Amino acid sequence: MIKVCILGAGKVGSHFIKECINNPVLNLVQIYNRTLQPIKIYQDSILITQDTTHLVKADVYLICLADDVIKTLDLSSLKGLVVHTSGTKPYQEINAKQRGVLYPLQSFSKEKHLDFKQVPLCIETEFENDLELLFKLANAISTKVQVLQASQREKLHLAAVFANNFSNRMMGIAYDLCKKQKIDFTFLQPLLQETFLKTQVLPPHIAQTGPAIREDQATINKHLEQLTGLDKEIYKLVTQSIQKRHGEKL
Amino acid sequence: MIKVCILGAGKVGSHFIKECINNPVLNLVQIYNRTLQPIKIYQDSILITQDTTHLVKADVYLICLADDVIKTLDLSSLKGLVVHTSGTKPYQEINAKQRGVLYPLQSFSKEKHLDFKQVPLCIETEFENDLELLFKLANAISTKVQVLQASQREKLHLAAVFANNFSNRMMGIAYDLCKKQKIDFTFLQPLLQETFLKTQVLPPHIAQTGPAIREDQATINKHLEQLTGLDKEIYKLVTQSIQKRHGEKL
Repeated sequence: MIKVCILGAGKVGSHFIKECINNPVLNLVQIYNRTLQPIKIYQDSILITQDTTHLVKADVYLICLADDVIKTLDLSSLKGLVVHTSGTKPYQEINAKQRGVLYPLQSFSKEKHLDFKQVPLCIETEFENDLELLFKLANAISTKVQVLQASQREKLHLAAVFANNFSNRMMGIAYDLCKKQKIDFTFLQPLLQETFLKTQVLPPHIAQTGPAIREDQATINKHLEQLTGLDKEIYKLVTQSIQKRHGEKL
Repeated sequence: MIKVCILGAGKVGSHFIKECINNPVLNLVQIYNRTLQPIKIYQDSILITQDTTHLVKADVYLICLADDVIKTLDLSSLKGLVVHTSGTKPYQEINAKQRGVLYPLQSFSKEKHLDFKQVPLCIETEFENDLELLFKLANAISTKVQVLQASQREKLHLAAVFANNFSNRMMGIAYDLCKKQKIDFTFLQPLLQETFLKTQVLPPHIAQTGPAIREDQATINKHLEQLTGLDKEIYKLVTQSIQKRHGEKL
């Protein structure tokens, strides 16, 4: 079994805690959090602490804290591999002897259960002989493990912001428009499902439909009349983006 | 059986043609298209024409043509219900005695098969006694039929543009970023799936994650450095939109 210590019990940390507790290959030996309150529920079965100088021995320390916190921790006395879970930070921000990254390419909500088996894990270590251990840990959690250097991980993270955060915001604007008109948002679900399913069989620029790509200016104008503020600006800009991409070769 | 004549064999029309051919309640008696070439494949079993003065008798004429073409057609001599499939145009643009709308709330791609049973159909007729026939036709095609007035249909169509066309463009930008970096886009599929599944259980503003909602300015700045042109402008504006929506009550 791989002894794991998790630092942080936020969105990402709490999902990793649950995974470690239920995973037969992993042994969760300790949880660190800045405040004890959120991790007190685990105190009967697992060591908990709010002091990084009290960390016990583990094979892997998994930092699930805000990006900017990583470099503020002094973990230089630890004997074990210390990895963070950030999509954007280099492992160099970790103050430890053995360092690496385990970036889960997924969006975490506390409210929703997640099956880690399907979550792509991008891993990287400073020293080659640490890679085997991290690979073993990642493989115990997910079927989709990939070694990825920092520069590619950064681009993947940026792509994920568009694919997930920004497409979610587009659905959010749709949700708010429906709510204001007292239209049931579930009426849009088959369309959302189709939108998602299409990305599995067609590149998005091929699957693109709507007034923008049809250059249907009458409909575009009618839509703009109904919008105000940021929604209107977004409508204009994304319409422009669809039209510019149309026909372009990458 | 309901005798149907379909006008137009584009993205929407071709899906309705296939549906009518396979639907036991519907009898496709004729297909009109501006040019005969795309509908010649049907000529052995169904009447085809490129002249609206040659339309034969049917119960329902289904206009699946570009929005701006609707009002250019003189269908005033037809004895039957004439409906268009536009999300934005009022039935008043149809030049016919009996008029209505059958708006399918779905994104149509010629390349991809569609199960009409799950497609919400929004219907409306000028005269109340035409509604029964249109309802019968719509029910034969889909399990999700709803009577919707023009103003609500317009808002739904606008919401659909954000939910489908614009979220698809966000995935398109992600696809292009991956392609430029030679990262396999399928690596993002579990994230896309989770993004879509979340909309079924959480309102999008509750499901929202990412640097924008965390107000993680360091990551936002790092992302902006990596972007240019419209992608950069979209990043700024959608980030602003996420932050503004956060905490707002509707």
